[in-house]
Amino acid sequence: MQMISAEMQSCVENCLNCYETCIKTSMHHCLEAGGKHVAPQHFRLMSTCAEICRAAAAVMLIGTSHHRNLCRVCAEVCEDCGQDCERIGDMQECVEACRRCAETCRSMSA
Amino acid sequence: MQMISAEMQSCVENCLNCYETCIKTSMHHCLEAGGKHVAPQHFRLMSTCAEICRAAAAVMLIGTSHHRNLCRVCAEVCEDCGQDCERIGDMQECVEACRRCAETCRSMSA
Amino acid sequence: MQMISAEMQSCVENCLNCYETCIKTSMHHCLEAGGKHVAPQHFRLMSTCAEICRAAAAVMLIGTSHHRNLCRVCAEVCEDCGQDCERIGDMQECVEACRRCAETCRSMSA
Amino acid sequence: MQMISAEMQSCVENCLNCYETCIKTSMHHCLEAGGKHVAPQHFRLMSTCAEICRAAAAVMLIGTSHHRNLCRVCAEVCEDCGQDCERIGDMQECVEACRRCAETCRSMSA
Repeated sequence: MQMISAEMQSCVENCLNCYETCIKTSMHHCLEAGGKHVAPQHFRLMSTCAEICRAAAAVMLIGTSHHRNLCRVCAEVCEDCGQDCERIGDMQECVEACRRCAETCRSMSA
Repeated sequence: MQMISAEMQSCVENCLNCYETCIKTSMHHCLEAGGKHVAPQHFRLMSTCAEICRAAAAVMLIGTSHHRNLCRVCAEVCEDCGQDCERIGDMQECVEACRRCAETCRSMSA
Repeated sequence: MQMISAEMQSCVENCLNCYETCIKTSMHHCLEAGGKHVAPQHFRLMSTCAEICRAAAAVMLIGTSHHRNLCRVCAEVCEDCGQDCERIGDMQECVEACRRCAETCRSMSA
Repeated sequence: MQMISAEMQSCVENCLNCYETCIKTSMHHCLEAGGKHVAPQHFRLMSTCAEICRAAAAVMLIGTSHHRNLCRVCAEVCEDCGQDCERIGDMQECVEACRRCAETCRSMSA
């Protein structure tokens, strides 16, 4: 049964993958590494990114045109989060998940 | 302990109240009334509104400046949802929750 | 980076897949089909299943032993939802997603 | 419009209040205080508590009998989280929110 477009389904997968990666990385890698990994601004950004990715996936699955504006916000947060993870280092999986998600969310927001 | 501003806390309450009202109204009133209350476009809009309100509350509680853009999207969805509930009728509680949420989210997005 | 066990990661994927399938199916197939597909008890069960699957995935990703009890509840809800979808018919994708999720959640709750 | 019982509505409020308090406290107080406040086990417990409280509220609002088992799990997590916050100290608001939520969730699970 085809319920949402293949392009949107792929964006949902990237959002849920970014959500998973941000939660796992913050709750395992960051809390265990400590130091700059638990700096309030960095940790809150990762948590915000997880929350918005999960919501963007939900709204695409529900299927209203409001996903466009939400995907634009999601792309911005993912870009910021990916940059911050790269700056801090040792979080390549998260950097890549954020970039992939930002890219497809950007294209869904057009 | 003061962790977020009183203005933001009040917006969080309005978002969670709108979330609660949209879920309860759709899952009880709308499913039981049937007809235009379960028209796909209307029901999806209420579900989208609930989801975005919950995410906006979460991001304000987490505390990053990204709440601004998310609150702007939330205000738009709440306005649409409130108008649609008014058009369909017999959902005054939801109309009011959406308007209150739209108004404070609009002011948080500035 | 290995943060959660392969078995748990596989359960997370099944939970998120069941979440996706329940939301998409209820918001597209059920709302468009109408009739018994929007019967309050059926629709609420699908919505409950989606919500619990998403929470079970989150708690496994966060990584506390409380996932065990939550996975037990998730398995029960998925079994009920899968049976109800089978009884109503024409929702084979959802039946299968619920069963796969119930099975792995059951094994994670031991 | 009466959609869920007054007792259940009160439990929903306690769950959402506990959710809010756990997120705010972990993301502001704990990240800023550091040390034992960001010990992985403590921080993950607070995050788990927030997630389960939010899901329990959602399932009560949706309105299926599955809320009973979920409220039982929620009560257990809230008790653990309240005790851990008390042990660490300086989180009285969170201790009280967890206890209130545990108590009403316990009574909803009977």
